[in-house]
Amino acid sequence: MQVNLAQHIQKYITLSDHEIHRLSEFTETIHLKKKAWVLQENSVCHHWYFVEKGCLRMFFINSKGVEQITQFALEGWWITDFNSFLNKVPSAYAIQTIEASTIVSIHQKVLEQMLAELPGLEKYFRLVLQKAVAASQHRAKLSYEMSKEEFFLHFSTSFPDFMQRVPQYMIASYLGLTPEYLSELRKKFS
Amino acid sequence: MQVNLAQHIQKYITLSDHEIHRLSEFTETIHLKKKAWVLQENSVCHHWYFVEKGCLRMFFINSKGVEQITQFALEGWWITDFNSFLNKVPSAYAIQTIEASTIVSIHQKVLEQMLAELPGLEKYFRLVLQKAVAASQHRAKLSYEMSKEEFFLHFSTSFPDFMQRVPQYMIASYLGLTPEYLSELRKKFS
Repeated sequence: MQVNLAQHIQKYITLSDHEIHRLSEFTETIHLKKKAWVLQENSVCHHWYFVEKGCLRMFFINSKGVEQITQFALEGWWITDFNSFLNKVPSAYAIQTIEASTIVSIHQKVLEQMLAELPGLEKYFRLVLQKAVAASQHRAKLSYEMSKEEFFLHFSTSFPDFMQRVPQYMIASYLGLTPEYLSELRKKFS
Repeated sequence: MQVNLAQHIQKYITLSDHEIHRLSEFTETIHLKKKAWVLQENSVCHHWYFVEKGCLRMFFINSKGVEQITQFALEGWWITDFNSFLNKVPSAYAIQTIEASTIVSIHQKVLEQMLAELPGLEKYFRLVLQKAVAASQHRAKLSYEMSKEEFFLHFSTSFPDFMQRVPQYMIASYLGLTPEYLSELRKKFS
């Protein structure tokens, strides 16, 4: 389901027509094919990305040379490597589309310019970030208290559509399972 | 080292004397003894806390009835259970002082009132939250790529003062180690 950025912002704050117009000038809407690179490893991640349509994954290459997925972003979610974004250092991550996607991109400098000109938008980003911290606290708690099997069950119950949409090996990577073990779990609990 | 909230904010944005005065009226400064409760489990966490002096820990009781520490907050850090804070649901966590501490507390409703009256402060909270998300992304990456031994070594190298300041069993809980294993690691690498 497509989520328009301006409409998403208006769930949180009121935007004037002028603000909606300026928002479209400060941001760039990009249409990407499946498996397109949004961020390459070792590049500085200058942009913050909002997913209007499709699905992204963020991953790094671990010491065994294997892709380790740490985050997904679906419609209505923002994603970036904040360490790279804030400190202008090369990113340890890559970001890639899983499906054909439409994303809205904003450069870090342009974000600050936009918020200086349209300070009413600060509240939107503060509220979005509060939710992001809530989600990361929740995930950290799960990782402390759940076995991998329990984590899988929780994940598949909480996000059934997502389980259908994303390749099984990517879910396995995110959950820290081997694809074989995930396949066993899916059979066991299906 | 004591960190005054108004001074902390002024590292990020400029505050007028009026804003500093109103900030002190919207917030409450609380002096707490060691092991004082900031949040009790199953209460709604209505407040966001800034540590001016001292150290807090946030934990939940796991299925084995053991305290599992998920976060610490030192001078200059904000802490709350965002799920409880945003959704007004009982918290699964407790927050307690580790040392005698001075904290600044702001109620969720009062935060929104304050930001409506002093919208210039939105930027400060947005920047603080961006850093919080960066820190949680970093921690999630470490938990994927490091063994518990490597995590201990990274933690003790990155935060040597903290290792001295906080009881060993609390660091063990945070790192997901038994206190006995942490003690072995400290001997091995000291």
